[in-house]
Amino acid sequence: MKTKVGIVGYGNLGRGVEKVLQYHDDLELVGIFTRRDPDSLDTASRAYHMDALEKKTNDIDVLILCGGSATDIPETAHMYAKNFSTVDCYDNHRDMPNHFKRMNEAATGGENVSIIGTGWDPGVFSVQKLYSEALLPNGESYTFWGPGLSQGHSDAVRRLDGVKLAAQYTMPSSEMIKEIEDGRDVSYDKFSSHHRVVYVVLEEGADADIVRESIITMPDYFEPYETEVHFISESEYNKNHTQLRHGGHVIRRGYTGDNTHTYKTTLDLDSNPEFTASVAVACARAAKRFMDARQFGAKSIFDIPPMYLLNESRESLIERLL
Amino acid sequence: MKTKVGIVGYGNLGRGVEKVLQYHDDLELVGIFTRRDPDSLDTASRAYHMDALEKKTNDIDVLILCGGSATDIPETAHMYAKNFSTVDCYDNHRDMPNHFKRMNEAATGGENVSIIGTGWDPGVFSVQKLYSEALLPNGESYTFWGPGLSQGHSDAVRRLDGVKLAAQYTMPSSEMIKEIEDGRDVSYDKFSSHHRVVYVVLEEGADADIVRESIITMPDYFEPYETEVHFISESEYNKNHTQLRHGGHVIRRGYTGDNTHTYKTTLDLDSNPEFTASVAVACARAAKRFMDARQFGAKSIFDIPPMYLLNESRESLIERLL
Repeated sequence: MKTKVGIVGYGNLGRGVEKVLQYHDDLELVGIFTRRDPDSLDTASRAYHMDALEKKTNDIDVLILCGGSATDIPETAHMYAKNFSTVDCYDNHRDMPNHFKRMNEAATGGENVSIIGTGWDPGVFSVQKLYSEALLPNGESYTFWGPGLSQGHSDAVRRLDGVKLAAQYTMPSSEMIKEIEDGRDVSYDKFSSHHRVVYVVLEEGADADIVRESIITMPDYFEPYETEVHFISESEYNKNHTQLRHGGHVIRRGYTGDNTHTYKTTLDLDSNPEFTASVAVACARAAKRFMDARQFGAKSIFDIPPMYLLNESRESLIERLL
Repeated sequence: MKTKVGIVGYGNLGRGVEKVLQYHDDLELVGIFTRRDPDSLDTASRAYHMDALEKKTNDIDVLILCGGSATDIPETAHMYAKNFSTVDCYDNHRDMPNHFKRMNEAATGGENVSIIGTGWDPGVFSVQKLYSEALLPNGESYTFWGPGLSQGHSDAVRRLDGVKLAAQYTMPSSEMIKEIEDGRDVSYDKFSSHHRVVYVVLEEGADADIVRESIITMPDYFEPYETEVHFISESEYNKNHTQLRHGGHVIRRGYTGDNTHTYKTTLDLDSNPEFTASVAVACARAAKRFMDARQFGAKSIFDIPPMYLLNESRESLIERLL
């Protein structure tokens, strides 16, 4: 029997999940749930108003929560987790421990499973950091993002008063990456290794200085990164800033005595939301496995036995991939 | 309380495990068990004859089996698994399903845990193939090995008349890797994706042309690979070719509609046995976690929740790495 998946929210991420589900034969899309008029969605899938969700608890195995991280997920995710198993792509790293607590309480109470913080960062990058630290405990880790558009950061800017459209680019220090690859010492920290560039289309009559100040002082998202803000026209935005490309590197350099070992993971993604959606969809399968094992509560990618992510038996995986 | 680890066998891998254990505060080396005279081992650790092992079942949590894959592991590993939880680095991919069955029967019967096929290939490469397939189900995977020293090929060259010393390196095709990353079509197969480079120290008076011809025409080992042969001095050999360097790349190129995503893992290892040992040691910690959860039987890296590999709480991992 197929695992029945629902999508909550139909922005870039929700559309990505809908698209990616076609590549998973064992997963079935039950419907898209939206706060908008469901008939207004440009989709061939079944769409429902959010209010229909409460009658669907028996028809859905896993809800993939595709709302934004700025407000949607922290304010609403735990309410869904009471009645449904969920997967989310919450990306506020600093709030993750609180999010885990909220979701764990709700999911445990409802005998559901909530897999939090899926995607590639958090998600793939997080688990690669864990593996490389575990396998090379004596060493240093480096993470580089981009160049690429950050959905979470663009979304946070878009929610500010006076902002009509926004695109935020994370730019890695290519000099520092080369220094690490050459085996040199670097003074790496999260902030010195990257800067942020934001392109903003203002609402008519909005004050550019106020918007700029609101952006560069936004805690966690921008402060204390070096941030450039550029104000552009809507036509320039549409011409140059609608690509959703992203990626980056997780690098661990570790030592056993005098020997150096490098473990590096690189993602190069044409579409950030579609790859994020891909990870969420594989995690929906894992959520169903945890449900079947009655291991309720909140989980992260750190808890997921990798084989839970594929629809294939242990024997076949050993024969084919080990 | 520390997890108590025993080492069976004291070749390159056993010495690697002994060295790596110093980087894991929660693991403790109980002793090295050998078929040789234990006093003959060049080690500061406690060494015992293998016969002492039967009296140590209560003193050891996990045995790391460091015997060779040609005969030691397939012939003896299941006997240890009856009385001890084990980790092995068995690397005969084709025999892995049989090895799993043998180990699963023995470990389940003895209420032990046996983690099989750890290291980097099988091991890290295997789990990276699994993740990248799960996250990009619509795509193709490519594996490249090296630059790395192949002991078997070096030995084959060393047996030729006129050869005093030899080091054979497997080299991945960097052109093909770039073609994959650039999104171009490639005709990947075992032979076109790699070439071989041999460094030879000749015996006095040996004919270089004859030796070169004997190498490049050696069936299976070299023919039909593209092979380069370099003749060097003994001092250059000792300076540059006694390292057990290895590594490689696992690359998955996947598609969501028209969008292409690349997931690449690269290992660059100064010492093949020491990194292999590092993976085995982290898996010994995981074996203890499975034991504590009374989840007996054989496991592979596909079964291991990543957080089992680190000595850190879920809460701390979420805060620090998610």
